[in-house]
Amino acid sequence: MNRKYAELIDRVHTAKPLIHHITNYVTVNDCANITLAIGASPIMADAPEEAADIARIASALVLNMGTLNERTVKSMLLAGKAANEAGSPVVFDPVGAGASAFRNETAARVLNEVEISVLRGNISEIRFLAGLHAETKGVDAAESDIRDTTSAVSLAKELAVRLGCVIAITGAIDVISDGEKAVCVKNGHTKLSELTGTGCMCSSLMGSFCGAAPDMPFEATVAALLCMGIAGELAYESAGTRGNGSFRVALHNDMSKMSVETISGRAKLHEA
Amino acid sequence: MNRKYAELIDRVHTAKPLIHHITNYVTVNDCANITLAIGASPIMADAPEEAADIARIASALVLNMGTLNERTVKSMLLAGKAANEAGSPVVFDPVGAGASAFRNETAARVLNEVEISVLRGNISEIRFLAGLHAETKGVDAAESDIRDTTSAVSLAKELAVRLGCVIAITGAIDVISDGEKAVCVKNGHTKLSELTGTGCMCSSLMGSFCGAAPDMPFEATVAALLCMGIAGELAYESAGTRGNGSFRVALHNDMSKMSVETISGRAKLHEA
Amino acid sequence: MNRKYAELIDRVHTAKPLIHHITNYVTVNDCANITLAIGASPIMADAPEEAADIARIASALVLNMGTLNERTVKSMLLAGKAANEAGSPVVFDPVGAGASAFRNETAARVLNEVEISVLRGNISEIRFLAGLHAETKGVDAAESDIRDTTSAVSLAKELAVRLGCVIAITGAIDVISDGEKAVCVKNGHTKLSELTGTGCMCSSLMGSFCGAAPDMPFEATVAALLCMGIAGELAYESAGTRGNGSFRVALHNDMSKMSVETISGRAKLHEA
Repeated sequence: MNRKYAELIDRVHTAKPLIHHITNYVTVNDCANITLAIGASPIMADAPEEAADIARIASALVLNMGTLNERTVKSMLLAGKAANEAGSPVVFDPVGAGASAFRNETAARVLNEVEISVLRGNISEIRFLAGLHAETKGVDAAESDIRDTTSAVSLAKELAVRLGCVIAITGAIDVISDGEKAVCVKNGHTKLSELTGTGCMCSSLMGSFCGAAPDMPFEATVAALLCMGIAGELAYESAGTRGNGSFRVALHNDMSKMSVETISGRAKLHEA
Repeated sequence: MNRKYAELIDRVHTAKPLIHHITNYVTVNDCANITLAIGASPIMADAPEEAADIARIASALVLNMGTLNERTVKSMLLAGKAANEAGSPVVFDPVGAGASAFRNETAARVLNEVEISVLRGNISEIRFLAGLHAETKGVDAAESDIRDTTSAVSLAKELAVRLGCVIAITGAIDVISDGEKAVCVKNGHTKLSELTGTGCMCSSLMGSFCGAAPDMPFEATVAALLCMGIAGELAYESAGTRGNGSFRVALHNDMSKMSVETISGRAKLHEA
Repeated sequence: MNRKYAELIDRVHTAKPLIHHITNYVTVNDCANITLAIGASPIMADAPEEAADIARIASALVLNMGTLNERTVKSMLLAGKAANEAGSPVVFDPVGAGASAFRNETAARVLNEVEISVLRGNISEIRFLAGLHAETKGVDAAESDIRDTTSAVSLAKELAVRLGCVIAITGAIDVISDGEKAVCVKNGHTKLSELTGTGCMCSSLMGSFCGAAPDMPFEATVAALLCMGIAGELAYESAGTRGNGSFRVALHNDMSKMSVETISGRAKLHEA
């Protein structure tokens, strides 16, 4: 089963898809470098004057709410609609949904006005968007990770059906569903949570795989999360105890050497 | 004496305070990663639509003027007032005060409209804000470091009384005063000045310590500067001669492994 | 011949010129750190309220279109005119010229309203600005590198005369001309194309050398490209096979240790 996902990396290497990002300025450099490391090509452009133009020449669009403002919200909607018209996949990362009214309204507008291919968030963000956690106040440590895989799988399936897209709930265990199929990815390392941007990089990898395999958003999403989980494990093994700086360098090293063999050999994947 | 400061790191590790940053896009990634490395949690949000909401859910606020613009100035004031109402500490880093009228006016507005807990700058910025150097034109190499510790201590004490906050003048020697007490920190390495963002990271560490120990802004500021100085020394010892890239990686490694023992064992601190 | 270029690094180390950047938020941290690594001092400031003030206190200005928006375009023009009045060199990096109408119009406005000292781009961007490739649609993989050195030299010479500035076409081979003289730099490594920001860093290095040697923009440009090419070779030799993360660290290490001897000993330079 693993090989089906693993082989998608060859499609990324061959297609070298151009991935348009409208993303935050905190982790944007990591997003660009991880996109290059996996074999795709990043382009960041967030002005309303060109958002649609850039979306039309790209193979996929990644919308990330990390540091949104009036200008970038406008651009997300323009780019999203242009990507929809062009038939390109759109990955949406609703960073901090639940933390402010501005984020909540923006997430709602994106989901209403743009056809999303993949929605990725942590359990807190996904629960909020599913309407299950309307009372949240921002970063909720108690809910920063999946505690009950069975209910996370149900949530992912239901929301996938409701929104008509792939749902990826990421954490120590990642849960992915397209409304019918569902899988759990158990790769990864807790050290990943000590670096900023590992979630954002997952979304960039999803954009890269979706751009290379637009017909298979579910499989592309699983492949992307396998890559991040496995690179995190390899990086911890070679450099994790030296500290956060070396772990980060190793993560980029391991992503840039990722292969079909590494993915299929190390994948910890099961159907849910 | 050192142990009193050193033990504050345990409060950071236990509280994992959420630190709201409105900061520049040059060093923001370093600020986020150093906040995680010391055990706190960063959130960056600079839109006026949500600045106050985010400030209210955070344990401390860091305002950094590195790359300010009309939007972020507005957000700094909104977030600052919300943090004041919530009783959360505010760290202010007036990057480039003296370099342009826009920076000077912004620094004045922040100091007038927001109650600051800690003000951190180099000697040139602090002298400018104290009204001692009104003729400066931006980056003044001759004044980029403290040349006379005695007069820097006097300046810090006087300004602390006048502004009602902790003043930290950072350089080869750091001078910290709350208007009554004053200490000098002699840890650090000149190599730190060859990396961008080491000053900004000091402010993020101050925010992290203040967020965990809001009742002790003076001690929190000293602890933060000890951590940066000691991490700089350790990073130079292990990697400094290999060049700037390795030094930076080692700095993040050493910060992520900082402990009460390392701080109290290596602190070069004296009362002034 | 090489020594003439190599010795300019001593002028950078002595002058430590302040380099004003209005640049993108993707690679800005790399630009700041590479500017420090070569011995200059970066300042990033992109608000219209201060763009001219900062340009006036800097020794050179770097304008980079990577992620432009309404605010930064306004600031580029204000800073450019102020630098012109102050007699400071201006380096222009028209990232993505050809990819959107907004980028094309911005590039045209900068070239019309600001006197540029050095224009740096890849062959696709430079051809577009020369009016040879008006039908391009953004990132054109087929044209991402120079395929015919002779015609690239002709293009650089002609455009240098027409625009009255130094033209640098960068790629596997770099071509530099001031309209009379022309040289090719054959240093570098393909691994550089797997990191984001290596082009932007070239422009920052050009700004650093031009700021230290404003009377010699052609030689300063050549010296900057020699440094990047040689650092790329050295970084690949020491760390390239470990992966993208280690290669990047080594690139910053090697740049921070660059010397007259290293440059003159390794330069692969020939007049064209």
